[in-house]
Amino acid sequence: MGRLTGGDPSLLRRINSAVVLHALRGAGSPTLTDLTRVTGLSRPTVEGVIEGLIEAGLVAESVPEEGGTRRQGRPARRFRFRVEAGHLLGIEIGPHRVAALVSGLDGRIIGAASRDVSDTASADDRLDRVRVVTADVLRRTGVSRSNLRAVGVACPGIVETDGTVRLGVALPGWTGLALGQRIQRSFRCPVLVENDANAAVVAEHWKGVAKDCDDVVFVLAGLSPGAGSLINGRLHRGFGGAAGEIGALHLLGRQLRPERLLSRTDEPLHPLDEQAVTEVFAMAKKGDARAQAAVDRYVQRLVHDVAALALALDPELVVIGGWAAGLDGVLEPLRNELSRYCLRPPRVVLSLLREAAVATGALRIALDHAEEELFAVEGTAARD
Amino acid sequence: MGRLTGGDPSLLRRINSAVVLHALRGAGSPTLTDLTRVTGLSRPTVEGVIEGLIEAGLVAESVPEEGGTRRQGRPARRFRFRVEAGHLLGIEIGPHRVAALVSGLDGRIIGAASRDVSDTASADDRLDRVRVVTADVLRRTGVSRSNLRAVGVACPGIVETDGTVRLGVALPGWTGLALGQRIQRSFRCPVLVENDANAAVVAEHWKGVAKDCDDVVFVLAGLSPGAGSLINGRLHRGFGGAAGEIGALHLLGRQLRPERLLSRTDEPLHPLDEQAVTEVFAMAKKGDARAQAAVDRYVQRLVHDVAALALALDPELVVIGGWAAGLDGVLEPLRNELSRYCLRPPRVVLSLLREAAVATGALRIALDHAEEELFAVEGTAARD
Repeated sequence: MGRLTGGDPSLLRRINSAVVLHALRGAGSPTLTDLTRVTGLSRPTVEGVIEGLIEAGLVAESVPEEGGTRRQGRPARRFRFRVEAGHLLGIEIGPHRVAALVSGLDGRIIGAASRDVSDTASADDRLDRVRVVTADVLRRTGVSRSNLRAVGVACPGIVETDGTVRLGVALPGWTGLALGQRIQRSFRCPVLVENDANAAVVAEHWKGVAKDCDDVVFVLAGLSPGAGSLINGRLHRGFGGAAGEIGALHLLGRQLRPERLLSRTDEPLHPLDEQAVTEVFAMAKKGDARAQAAVDRYVQRLVHDVAALALALDPELVVIGGWAAGLDGVLEPLRNELSRYCLRPPRVVLSLLREAAVATGALRIALDHAEEELFAVEGTAARD
Repeated sequence: MGRLTGGDPSLLRRINSAVVLHALRGAGSPTLTDLTRVTGLSRPTVEGVIEGLIEAGLVAESVPEEGGTRRQGRPARRFRFRVEAGHLLGIEIGPHRVAALVSGLDGRIIGAASRDVSDTASADDRLDRVRVVTADVLRRTGVSRSNLRAVGVACPGIVETDGTVRLGVALPGWTGLALGQRIQRSFRCPVLVENDANAAVVAEHWKGVAKDCDDVVFVLAGLSPGAGSLINGRLHRGFGGAAGEIGALHLLGRQLRPERLLSRTDEPLHPLDEQAVTEVFAMAKKGDARAQAAVDRYVQRLVHDVAALALALDPELVVIGGWAAGLDGVLEPLRNELSRYCLRPPRVVLSLLREAAVATGALRIALDHAEEELFAVEGTAARD
């Protein structure tokens, strides 16, 4: 109830700054008059705010274009949001690849880099690769570390809020790793660590197939499947950050213990052995019956996992990404089976961002953090 | 951005009213001085608001207790929130029973009524029973229909936002029924229809085992299992209102088609035949080996359903309710299996409210609606 009473002039200044900054981001190069009209603030207030934002380096006076339409008298000053006032870094740490993206404060990607890494690499080796990729992308884009506002990192596993990996069986030495802390050593800005499927769903909502959907499940298939969910447009992490970690489901469905599954001779699809899975799929394409049976089991398992998610969450849209997004014909069986088992089957589509989804999501998470600092005022939405 | 600018005096009055009403509900019988201190509002403002609330019938001057400590001079006027200014009705429509609860605006239950109904009763017959139970509980509590602020109704099935049952296989004639509209005929206040498991999770959060948990899954077992979920303390209905309708999951898990399941001779546990299930469980208790095997299958299926929910949502707490809450020994196998399959197993407990859970949730949903009208002001929380 406290916030219903009293007034806070510094809060008011922050609100006004946020409003003007929002308006500046939305418009091209507005004049003071434009800003006064859009924000509803008085001209002296807008002038004061703009002065402060210029001092903070977030706003610049835009240079009038040569040869533009001339009018009588001195042209009105125009202003622009300095997207180059800060940069964001998004890092994907995967079993086979480490990738990084850089953007300005507008989220437009200005550089990318990646390196292959062995799925048996130790955590230290993998983090070495992260440093190489990071240095590479910063060098290419000419962005200095001091200009980074936030770094987002996405990787497999259950990630604690402090950036520690609580459980991560997909990467060697990952469980228990203080990943956030380790990566933080290379940066002065905040480092935010997120589960890879969670990052991917954020990415598809931002720049992919889920732009217009607020209730989305992204299934990151290929390795032991994981999923990330948006509920009402917000990432659903779960109470312990483990939401969507559905890898164990098929074991239940088949009434098998893990040790039995791994030792079954007619079960070549060890969920963590991506290479073996790829080979089996290639064999199936060439007509090998035993491989085809294994592929059928794989698809059946994926259907089961996705159906469990769909029944539990009832999303509008299911996005299939990761490794399975490259499979021919995984979509139709999924749609057919979901329409059989779900009371209200969701739409099922392939990821648009494909292998860029996870890194793009990591970048968006960094951008969210930066925008919160720039725009967020208690009681107002950080995004429009 | 519109709400960041401008001021609305009527909004301010509403905020002040809500603040004073909140304070009145929290305190016993505060004086104007108490209210001024608690709300931070000026004395004239509080006086004006109190005057308005008394006119609206929501506040009364409390009568000073006889024999209380005497002080010099005229005693300060004290005020109280009139919980009797409005009443709420919660109705449960189940396969075997129709039940109703009545409360005042404080949510304290002041009356209950119920009637058995056949699981083969038509929708019209079931609605007749609703009218009988409603009339009964209103007569017993002396509450007139005109004093009802809202009616909550909970039943099996997927419920549209307009109160129509989109799909409801548990009750004859339920699919497609315009339930909200039908029940609305008997009332002048708003009628809100909700899925039964959704109502139950709201109830356990309000008055049951989930009071301190904001991430809860309630599994309403017995009939085809359904589940209701709270995420961050809010009901998660899903995009199409079908979240938690996990009844079809076990079919996937077993790789069986429904028609096959129903005709299997060693499968006496038709999910919709509660009577048969009860008999089988009784036989198992007496040592019947075939019945015991069926019970094991039932528990295994329940485990599978709950695990799917737990993996998808990662709740803090799973509450087992409905018919399975009466089973001996369903909890231990559930806990054991969940700890095997979930990366972070949730706590699993039985419903505290048991057979009252669904009707209590319906009542809470009605109360939520009434409180929103009483207290809600844009940008402020409706509940403390």
